[in-house]
Amino acid sequence: MKTPVKSERELISRIEKRLPSPAGGLLRLGIGDDCAVLRARPGRELVVSCDFLIEARHFLLDAHSADSADSIGWKSLARATSDIAAMGGEAKCFLLSLALPKRLTGRWLDAFLGGMARAARSFGMVVAGGDTTLHEKVILNITVLGEVKIGRSIRRSGARPGDLICVTGRLGEAQLGLDLVRERKLLRKSNLLREKRGKQRKLCHGWEAALRKHLYPEPRLALGQWLAENRLATAMIDTSDGLSSDLGNICEASGVGARLFAEKIPAVAVPSMDLATAKNPRKLALRGNAPLDLAVHGGEDYELLFTVPRSKAGRLPARSRGVPLTIIGEITRKKGVIIIHRGKGPSPLISQGWDPFRSR
Amino acid sequence: MKTPVKSERELISRIEKRLPSPAGGLLRLGIGDDCAVLRARPGRELVVSCDFLIEARHFLLDAHSADSADSIGWKSLARATSDIAAMGGEAKCFLLSLALPKRLTGRWLDAFLGGMARAARSFGMVVAGGDTTLHEKVILNITVLGEVKIGRSIRRSGARPGDLICVTGRLGEAQLGLDLVRERKLLRKSNLLREKRGKQRKLCHGWEAALRKHLYPEPRLALGQWLAENRLATAMIDTSDGLSSDLGNICEASGVGARLFAEKIPAVAVPSMDLATAKNPRKLALRGNAPLDLAVHGGEDYELLFTVPRSKAGRLPARSRGVPLTIIGEITRKKGVIIIHRGKGPSPLISQGWDPFRSR
Repeated sequence: MKTPVKSERELISRIEKRLPSPAGGLLRLGIGDDCAVLRARPGRELVVSCDFLIEARHFLLDAHSADSADSIGWKSLARATSDIAAMGGEAKCFLLSLALPKRLTGRWLDAFLGGMARAARSFGMVVAGGDTTLHEKVILNITVLGEVKIGRSIRRSGARPGDLICVTGRLGEAQLGLDLVRERKLLRKSNLLREKRGKQRKLCHGWEAALRKHLYPEPRLALGQWLAENRLATAMIDTSDGLSSDLGNICEASGVGARLFAEKIPAVAVPSMDLATAKNPRKLALRGNAPLDLAVHGGEDYELLFTVPRSKAGRLPARSRGVPLTIIGEITRKKGVIIIHRGKGPSPLISQGWDPFRSR
Repeated sequence: MKTPVKSERELISRIEKRLPSPAGGLLRLGIGDDCAVLRARPGRELVVSCDFLIEARHFLLDAHSADSADSIGWKSLARATSDIAAMGGEAKCFLLSLALPKRLTGRWLDAFLGGMARAARSFGMVVAGGDTTLHEKVILNITVLGEVKIGRSIRRSGARPGDLICVTGRLGEAQLGLDLVRERKLLRKSNLLREKRGKQRKLCHGWEAALRKHLYPEPRLALGQWLAENRLATAMIDTSDGLSSDLGNICEASGVGARLFAEKIPAVAVPSMDLATAKNPRKLALRGNAPLDLAVHGGEDYELLFTVPRSKAGRLPARSRGVPLTIIGEITRKKGVIIIHRGKGPSPLISQGWDPFRSR
């Protein structure tokens, strides 16, 4: 088991060991100088975004669980990279700003870097640089960089009346997963644990998928690139704050409105199984009763939400790498987002997605 | 006086109002989408770096002082941008990750953005994007991006035995300024205050320069670019952690050693004037007695430290934009950094610069 570091240089060495920074492709000079040097291929431009992840606000730290650190490493890179997917870009490299207490620079850091390294390999990324400092709480900022053909990036502002609204995957899973993680014992008992610890109880598939979505989200990079390559999407965003907020952002940027069909929305499947290990099964059950609420307002699914001209909708596949694509509504000239429940008529959809500054 | 924001969108609007994000030049798409889009000019590559600034660790927050917020805005961008200067790059744009408590989203935010906007104009930068969130302490992460001609960036690894070691400005000023800021009353009485508050006592020039260096550092962008353009420097770094650490970094990256001449080092001038307003004049006096210590180990000066082949040293100007350039030593084949005091002979220079992870 690794001991805490004795200097910042030692910390950086540990990071470099787990997250290699080889020059090649976009990256001409990696970690270890004042700046990284990047050179895009001819005919390409860069997309860049950054993302905070702060202990107690964005995640709960369990210093004794390597699994928690592994997931934080994966998720922090995944959620930032999802912004590249949402532009139709190819993920290339990232900068890691990491603040943490000294006592976490041993085993916890190792597990954290392990999760991040797996995510980096999975997304095709290398680390380009970063910053480290000491702090009593873990604070992360990830800056991601990707490439896209000049003029092909998919923005939020291109949706036109009549375009169909499409979404990947199942919505609300990550929110359900968050509720589960709040019951820590459940997490320990789930078979998402990397280190096996003797007897394990298998969770039923629905819970497992929700946990996985919350802890190990997958940015939809391949589909995003395919949509950009084929000029199919007129506007795109990733569902980080919840469908109601994210669709609102596309509509506002595009100066349009939208009509959603409730029964078309691919909502999370909430298993009815009783959770003997959950401390507060009633709260979980409450969530479980409203899959549509989870799907419409739950955040952090990191799915792609995009608009397609009606004439091109036939070219969309039913699935992309096993993930379903679903048409859930259409863009309207009239502003505002409405949702139509079968047999009940339309009602306005008020954004209730994640906003830390809203007064509740 | 502005009131706190009611939503994240309102916060972002306030940021956009003070920090415009116009497309043009490198920036093809600014704030407001999932990613910014950047396109380097033909024949250029990008340099990128990021930098944390955390309340209580990197700065002290005085929520009642607009001056403090103004300086934090300036300094957070300046210190990140200094990394671009240290590569010989042209500063272009930045991403701002900002976490803060709601009560600071009114007047404090306004002053903070004011300082940052002045810095951005002064350095020739525009904001490209960022992330915002709520947190009880102020946390900043700034990612800066710049352009440099392909192959012209100046790295840490190019110093060769015989090269002369050169530094800009006066070293130790920022450390002295930090000591002064710790005496808050002094800061309020200094004529660095933007808002005039009746009678003011003028500080003598030495203190004023130290305060300014600590609160409003100036990245040496023009000189860095000139050195890159003219292929004069073989290695370069900015003095953020202190000369002893930063020169150590150049030597380690280049596989060489260095010899410094103590009497050549342009150390901060510490005025002998008594500070009637300082709570603890003895402590300040102590620092004042050792200008060379301040110069060698004090951090955050953000000057350029670079090496030049002896044959090209004659091309260096004595000053760049009013800032003196001083040759302080030479690179040696033998590893390790030594410092020669006149009449006392050489002694090893142990890095005592800023390292938050070192056990003290």
